Amino acid sequence: MSRKKILVVSAHPEPRSLTAALAAFAVEELRASGHEVRVSDLYAMKWKATVDADDFPDLAGDRPLDVLHAQERATLAGALTADVVAEQEKVRWADALILQFPLWWFSVPAILKGWVDRVFTNGFAYGPAVPPPYTEGALGGRRALLSVTFGARESAFSDRGAHGPLADVLFPLQHGLFWFTGMAALEPFAVPGTVDVPAERFEAAKRDYRRRLAGLFTDDPVPFRPLSTDYDHDMRLLPGLERPGADGLGLHVR
Amino acid sequence: MSRKKILVVSAHPEPRSLTAALAAFAVEELRASGHEVRVSDLYAMKWKATVDADDFPDLAGDRPLDVLHAQERATLAGALTADVVAEQEKVRWADALILQFPLWWFSVPAILKGWVDRVFTNGFAYGPAVPPPYTEGALGGRRALLSVTFGARESAFSDRGAHGPLADVLFPLQHGLFWFTGMAALEPFAVPGTVDVPAERFEAAKRDYRRRLAGLFTDDPVPFRPLSTDYDHDMRLLPGLERPGADGLGLHVR
Repeated sequence: MSRKKILVVSAHPEPRSLTAALAAFAVEELRASGHEVRVSDLYAMKWKATVDADDFPDLAGDRPLDVLHAQERATLAGALTADVVAEQEKVRWADALILQFPLWWFSVPAILKGWVDRVFTNGFAYGPAVPPPYTEGALGGRRALLSVTFGARESAFSDRGAHGPLADVLFPLQHGLFWFTGMAALEPFAVPGTVDVPAERFEAAKRDYRRRLAGLFTDDPVPFRPLSTDYDHDMRLLPGLERPGADGLGLHVR
Repeated sequence: MSRKKILVVSAHPEPRSLTAALAAFAVEELRASGHEVRVSDLYAMKWKATVDADDFPDLAGDRPLDVLHAQERATLAGALTADVVAEQEKVRWADALILQFPLWWFSVPAILKGWVDRVFTNGFAYGPAVPPPYTEGALGGRRALLSVTFGARESAFSDRGAHGPLADVLFPLQHGLFWFTGMAALEPFAVPGTVDVPAERFEAAKRDYRRRLAGLFTDDPVPFRPLSTDYDHDMRLLPGLERPGADGLGLHVR
């Protein structure tokens, strides 16, 4: 297998957590397969979670902070803060991105949301300043995997589960973040029922995760529709493309 | 109209932002209607976004930080930090909750995610320690409104929009946070196309928002299905309840 570059981003305050263990396992597995791996352990890095005026030291003091434009201007002017520049460099370097996190309130922990908010700037991850072909995404050519743990039973996130299908709950990341920036999103890898994880379940989770890591560059990604061919200029799905019976978020999968 | 209590939570780093203006407008309108309003302006409060060991000063030094259990224990022991206690008191006080925020990466800004992560603890917002009837939610009797602004066109979040229907993108909050804790979620109020908002569009947005604020306690909430009657013990929707053609997230609306 060809040597690839993978960025593992993990987000848990406890170094002895399941999240930390799974992140370490991923790093070990991927390195053992000959890949290069870099890690962003957000809590260990004391990652600054909130976008604020400190992110834009070049912003004139009396100018209102318009985040979209401030991010674009700072990105193009090379005036982003060093912590953000370092993470952008890692994302650019990577052939694949793995986000390892506990599902807190049906999304990423705030520190990881803050990594997305601050790193995926206009001009870096999307927007008119990104070199063409912009329509297929600024970060095209990369793969992306969400690796999540949650306390609920698997059934609660199943097709008929009260919390919604996991793929739909994660749509803001799978499609919003990954698809929108051009990355190929894989089906999420999930470890459910993590309120208590006995050793045999941890071993089973590692076996499952090993298979997913082995397929990181060969598994079929979620077949989200391409923006350039399947949508009109108002970003609406063109008529007649939907699978029979599909509606809601399912429309955006081929 | 009877006097009600409303908590407005807003999340934007710029006091001259559209978010700040809409939050101020909501406060003014609601007070003019005779309601009592409290505000949590998260950036002004310098809200701590990340859950970490500092949140649990009573945690024994060598004990791993298990967030779910640490939150439950600290909630029941009255050992949460003062900032979290103050916000829980506001939520408990309120008859309705309004979250005012810009949609960043298809979700709330990290600082607001951190408000949810830290305030809605096990033992306060959900979990076995909450007094019965737990199945209908710890925060039952409250209404909740997401008031969001986003740069994209409205069509991008429409039924066939590439970003998904707004209600589906916000499902982790509408259903994950509000429904799960027992609050009645209203349809989100959205101001699209906010990259540039000329005065007449701002006035139109305020007119629309005024109507939604006037209906805060009278508009029909989203008819999410009750957990106690419509799901089995594994939190799966009981057979035969789906509307014809509904699948995915739509299954969970009556």
